[in-house]
Amino acid sequence: MGKVLSFDEALRITKALNEDFAKTVVERDREAKSPKYERDAIRKSGLLTFFIAKELGGSGGSWEELLAIIREFSRVDSSIGHLYAFHNYQLATVRLYGEEKQWRELHKNTVERGWFWGNALNRISKSVVATKKADGSYEWNGTASFATGAKDADYLTITGGENSVEGKSLVAAIPASRAGITINDDWDNVGQRRTDSGTLTFKSVQVSANEILSNPGPFTTPFSSARALVGQLVFANIFLSIAEGAFETGLNYLRGKDAKPWLASFAPSAQKDPFILRHIGDLSVKLEGARALTEKANAQIDPIWQKAEALTQEERGKFAVSVATAKVAATQVGLDLTNRIFEPLGARSTASALGLDRFWRNLRTQTLHDPVDYKIYALGDWTLNGTLPTPTFYS
Amino acid sequence: MGKVLSFDEALRITKALNEDFAKTVVERDREAKSPKYERDAIRKSGLLTFFIAKELGGSGGSWEELLAIIREFSRVDSSIGHLYAFHNYQLATVRLYGEEKQWRELHKNTVERGWFWGNALNRISKSVVATKKADGSYEWNGTASFATGAKDADYLTITGGENSVEGKSLVAAIPASRAGITINDDWDNVGQRRTDSGTLTFKSVQVSANEILSNPGPFTTPFSSARALVGQLVFANIFLSIAEGAFETGLNYLRGKDAKPWLASFAPSAQKDPFILRHIGDLSVKLEGARALTEKANAQIDPIWQKAEALTQEERGKFAVSVATAKVAATQVGLDLTNRIFEPLGARSTASALGLDRFWRNLRTQTLHDPVDYKIYALGDWTLNGTLPTPTFYS
Amino acid sequence: MGKVLSFDEALRITKALNEDFAKTVVERDREAKSPKYERDAIRKSGLLTFFIAKELGGSGGSWEELLAIIREFSRVDSSIGHLYAFHNYQLATVRLYGEEKQWRELHKNTVERGWFWGNALNRISKSVVATKKADGSYEWNGTASFATGAKDADYLTITGGENSVEGKSLVAAIPASRAGITINDDWDNVGQRRTDSGTLTFKSVQVSANEILSNPGPFTTPFSSARALVGQLVFANIFLSIAEGAFETGLNYLRGKDAKPWLASFAPSAQKDPFILRHIGDLSVKLEGARALTEKANAQIDPIWQKAEALTQEERGKFAVSVATAKVAATQVGLDLTNRIFEPLGARSTASALGLDRFWRNLRTQTLHDPVDYKIYALGDWTLNGTLPTPTFYS
Amino acid sequence: MGKVLSFDEALRITKALNEDFAKTVVERDREAKSPKYERDAIRKSGLLTFFIAKELGGSGGSWEELLAIIREFSRVDSSIGHLYAFHNYQLATVRLYGEEKQWRELHKNTVERGWFWGNALNRISKSVVATKKADGSYEWNGTASFATGAKDADYLTITGGENSVEGKSLVAAIPASRAGITINDDWDNVGQRRTDSGTLTFKSVQVSANEILSNPGPFTTPFSSARALVGQLVFANIFLSIAEGAFETGLNYLRGKDAKPWLASFAPSAQKDPFILRHIGDLSVKLEGARALTEKANAQIDPIWQKAEALTQEERGKFAVSVATAKVAATQVGLDLTNRIFEPLGARSTASALGLDRFWRNLRTQTLHDPVDYKIYALGDWTLNGTLPTPTFYS
Repeated sequence: MGKVLSFDEALRITKALNEDFAKTVVERDREAKSPKYERDAIRKSGLLTFFIAKELGGSGGSWEELLAIIREFSRVDSSIGHLYAFHNYQLATVRLYGEEKQWRELHKNTVERGWFWGNALNRISKSVVATKKADGSYEWNGTASFATGAKDADYLTITGGENSVEGKSLVAAIPASRAGITINDDWDNVGQRRTDSGTLTFKSVQVSANEILSNPGPFTTPFSSARALVGQLVFANIFLSIAEGAFETGLNYLRGKDAKPWLASFAPSAQKDPFILRHIGDLSVKLEGARALTEKANAQIDPIWQKAEALTQEERGKFAVSVATAKVAATQVGLDLTNRIFEPLGARSTASALGLDRFWRNLRTQTLHDPVDYKIYALGDWTLNGTLPTPTFYS
Repeated sequence: MGKVLSFDEALRITKALNEDFAKTVVERDREAKSPKYERDAIRKSGLLTFFIAKELGGSGGSWEELLAIIREFSRVDSSIGHLYAFHNYQLATVRLYGEEKQWRELHKNTVERGWFWGNALNRISKSVVATKKADGSYEWNGTASFATGAKDADYLTITGGENSVEGKSLVAAIPASRAGITINDDWDNVGQRRTDSGTLTFKSVQVSANEILSNPGPFTTPFSSARALVGQLVFANIFLSIAEGAFETGLNYLRGKDAKPWLASFAPSAQKDPFILRHIGDLSVKLEGARALTEKANAQIDPIWQKAEALTQEERGKFAVSVATAKVAATQVGLDLTNRIFEPLGARSTASALGLDRFWRNLRTQTLHDPVDYKIYALGDWTLNGTLPTPTFYS
Repeated sequence: MGKVLSFDEALRITKALNEDFAKTVVERDREAKSPKYERDAIRKSGLLTFFIAKELGGSGGSWEELLAIIREFSRVDSSIGHLYAFHNYQLATVRLYGEEKQWRELHKNTVERGWFWGNALNRISKSVVATKKADGSYEWNGTASFATGAKDADYLTITGGENSVEGKSLVAAIPASRAGITINDDWDNVGQRRTDSGTLTFKSVQVSANEILSNPGPFTTPFSSARALVGQLVFANIFLSIAEGAFETGLNYLRGKDAKPWLASFAPSAQKDPFILRHIGDLSVKLEGARALTEKANAQIDPIWQKAEALTQEERGKFAVSVATAKVAATQVGLDLTNRIFEPLGARSTASALGLDRFWRNLRTQTLHDPVDYKIYALGDWTLNGTLPTPTFYS
Repeated sequence: MGKVLSFDEALRITKALNEDFAKTVVERDREAKSPKYERDAIRKSGLLTFFIAKELGGSGGSWEELLAIIREFSRVDSSIGHLYAFHNYQLATVRLYGEEKQWRELHKNTVERGWFWGNALNRISKSVVATKKADGSYEWNGTASFATGAKDADYLTITGGENSVEGKSLVAAIPASRAGITINDDWDNVGQRRTDSGTLTFKSVQVSANEILSNPGPFTTPFSSARALVGQLVFANIFLSIAEGAFETGLNYLRGKDAKPWLASFAPSAQKDPFILRHIGDLSVKLEGARALTEKANAQIDPIWQKAEALTQEERGKFAVSVATAKVAATQVGLDLTNRIFEPLGARSTASALGLDRFWRNLRTQTLHDPVDYKIYALGDWTLNGTLPTPTFYS
């Protein structure tokens, strides 16, 4: 069973965990092993059930509160923020795609059994096939990619193309221990290095009919198809936090004794150098802009969530526009900031011990999830033609 | 006496005036004569007393409402927005610098006599000297520059260096018809062409002691020194509106029959061309960012105004940071947008009849009021060092 | 008959004309009347035959020399540079599209009769139709747009779609005085205001068979199709010169007495202000880059021209890549520079008398001739896929 | 003794080494150990004496040729390019600072004994002190930082502040095996990871009078002070090469089977996607610009070098402007490219095995050597005021 945490308690717990994680984040990033230690610490913290409704044993936290916690984690270690966010993203997925009975039971079990959810739901992995058997159950085969957090997970969402129906995808929720699932431990990328986002192989994995989330399933209703927007908003928040983390790290460095004025500087200290402060001021304006747009989008998600099945295509579409606007801004500002922050700091700020490059590597990696150019195109289509973003797994 | 207008009424009146002004704005901009026609229309509209307290005969409009009206005007003709804003800026000035008796009487007279205020208060004009006479009154001599809206004004705020006190500036409010004032009709600049922002000469202009606004006068209290922030926030709103006006004009053009796809286009119509929509989408994200920051600053001014003499240096400083952030963002985004908007539109959008260049010319001119680089520097100083912006006539 | 001018003489003459034109360029730009005065001065100067071969009575100037003269004009008045360039562009057109006998005679007559050529060859004007008559001659009807320099021209190149052959365009060279041609005097755009680039109407204009330039005509050989590259390179040079002119004007202003340090400046003079010099330094690096790329492309045109019919598709394509690279760089750098140059100069630099905005207006207008995004796309296609730019009227 | 290599032979050897190094560059970069293997391979290759005059046993290579070899190395592994460049930089240093007898002997010994030079000459390390002893020799104490390539070096240039003369620096060339020198093996930074650029401690290191390079020493003549320009030009070339290497890697990836069009793409293949090709085209224009400016500066160094002591302050200064222009352009373009190249490639291009992030990490690290803002400022000072860059260790 879960603890019931107020938002303040949850935030306090997050900060305490962060304080611990911060001590070794640079080293851990380099090693890039599985974040077993951090995952277990989060398991014990009670945060895994923060978003689950009180009546099901959770803390009944809102989306805005949850996003604040994700941002808190991500400012220090965006891998951990990502994993915690994706646990909740799968809880949201079963809520959106499943029948009431299904998702309530899964949420309840999450509380009672302390599940940490992982993701093996990625429609880019077109090779995964779900074959219907005579008894109505399915057999899953193939290899899924970008299975963030599947390792050490207790429960998974999975997807596969139904073999008999062209273009139809099935989604299911199953225990991670189900026979036939192999996690290939092959995530070795330049950023988000502790998210275990490698491949996962299904070999004759048996999935019973009542594990399939098909009512409503994906894309059948505006609300169900809003799952993509939840994911995109989570991403916008993580991007923003990475930028915030890099900025904080850079500012702290600049305030310290290692920051020296250049020999030709106009000012007696680095802290008053015109070019240094111009960079900081310019980055602060851009960061404030991305923050304001992200907070505007964040403020819309709880009302959307509460509308549930009453959500209209138009309401969904306008929310999609806000989310995309925030995500694009956080992408552009974040990449500028995590690259440029070194300039006011100087050569010594490239020491591996400071670990300032990890913000750029994390952001550079995660912002490639889906191409920003097509997101910007879709915003242009809305602005000029009033075309709402097409519901897909990415918009 | 003034009409008491609700915000909705005031906005409706503004839109009706705009509809009239829009018909000839491109021609009028080219001719660049004094906006006598528009000024008289505003005089008749009742909008000149919108911001004055109800108890003094005005409509008691809030700052946020006033800024919305200024933005409405500026989207079509930023010269008119500027003049209307500066009328109110002088009303704010007498409130901030004068004794209660002084400003209440000046506000009341503004209602009763239908005054349109102009500005001859610019401390860059260091040559203007106020010489104290034996009877305690002053004689004003010299030439003020950038005297926006002084032409056709009924009342003016003026400034001059007190001859006997090094570095001390006096501010006064006097009738524009006072003997010895000559408006030189020499404003001929590339933008904000109908703001009559030329020079004004004082030749032995007599100013009585009770016309001097010296209690508190400028810079003596946090509230009094907040005048600069009012001006800077007005500017941020005008910059944003110019960008909004350019965007609307461009989008309308693109929606029309003159927008043709390029011969090598990927799309059958300009409206779906990838590069065109990418520009529009990118500009929309940036514009939304500047809008969010401006609205955040706008939301702070009424509480600041209500604090009045209770305003602390710290509160003033934090507001200054918000205002500067908005102004920098509106400057950067606006210059990008008013320059780039032509690209998705193509060669025919440079027709003088469309007048799309005026947005860039207006913004380019007005954003040079004070240098954006020093504003950004000050924001860096705040972000890194926690230094609040120094109160000056510009910050 | 023409004078035979060395390059040094031609450049000296250009500079002398420029000195005269510079006195009134700001006023003339505002009035935007036909540049009759300047055209007649160029007529008298001998520069109209600078590019024609010595054996035909010209000065035998090279392309690189001609481009230097065009750049010289354009730094002061890009309308005049444009008109002079387009005179030569038509001489090049008859060389490229016509039979040897045709172009030699047209060049010779240009020398002997002092013709100033104008352009009515624009395939965007799809409505112009050339109807073949029983005797083999043609009748031209319709309205051509962007007919730069057709007004006051002595001879014109024209184009029309042949009525009986789908998609086929005919090009011809005829006297501007031919019956049925009306110049509509309708050019009123925000930049390049003295190029008379308005529309021209053909009403039953008779064109004899031997006035048609059909052997080889457009697009039949790599050399013939290189006409577009001549035009594009001329544009790159004009864009660069506009940027150079704006930079020179800005630097001169900054060196003068009107440049004042900002009140919060780190330096005692504007000339040493860190932010001012940072802008100037940054713009100088970018301008040097665009200049280097343009000069690289310029160095290739004379060898290409001398290869003539021996030019291969591959050689043409690689030259097209160099030209496009220069044009894109000059576009991007120029727009940044003509917009940003105001920032180090401050508010007074917006005085109409200085006329600094005309550089931006001229460049903004002329760079829309064909969309830079599609040019950049083609360069990407070359860089990634080795695809040579497709020969069209624009590439 | 050295082999006498033609430029073509030297380039062929470099390419063969590169082919070998390329196989393991990604792994080696991660491990970040000393590049003993590569250094020994270069030792055997004959390239260490390429720049030494033929009469002293070298190949008599020119600077332009040497820079081409440095660029070749750096496109694959900029650490190796850096080390090879710095070997030659020290050879240049003894030439510039030493008496003819000194540098000729050092160059000759380099050939005969196969020395690989390292750098411990960095005036930022203000703590290093050279104490004059009674017999005219010196004792060196203190810790130098950024001692690139000192590890495994045979000979070193070193510097120290003369204890008795305020502000005076001494430079000397000594064997790396001299007693009292400890290399601290503490280079662990995010880029240029195999350059061993850590600290080096001098403890009572004895330096004889004839090891001091004091005639002319630093800053006494325009030629002597041109050492900084050699270093800056080497940097510009390395920066450019890193960008070229990243571009080549990215283009190869895009041409391969892993590049897939996005689900909403306008094109059937990634290779023809409009947004992908727009990035590639835009980056190619910028890269061509930086390349043109670097090649312009490269073309000036051999004539400068041949002028030797006849070099004037003005000639030195103009060369400094060209070098700075190239370095700023290579910095700006390179940072944009190494960051942005991921966008057309997509999420899978972040695989550690591809190693695409190392280009950004290498460039980000090395471009912080001295602040680009002050370089840009100096270019502004030249452009506006005609002020030649002040000779320092960085300009």
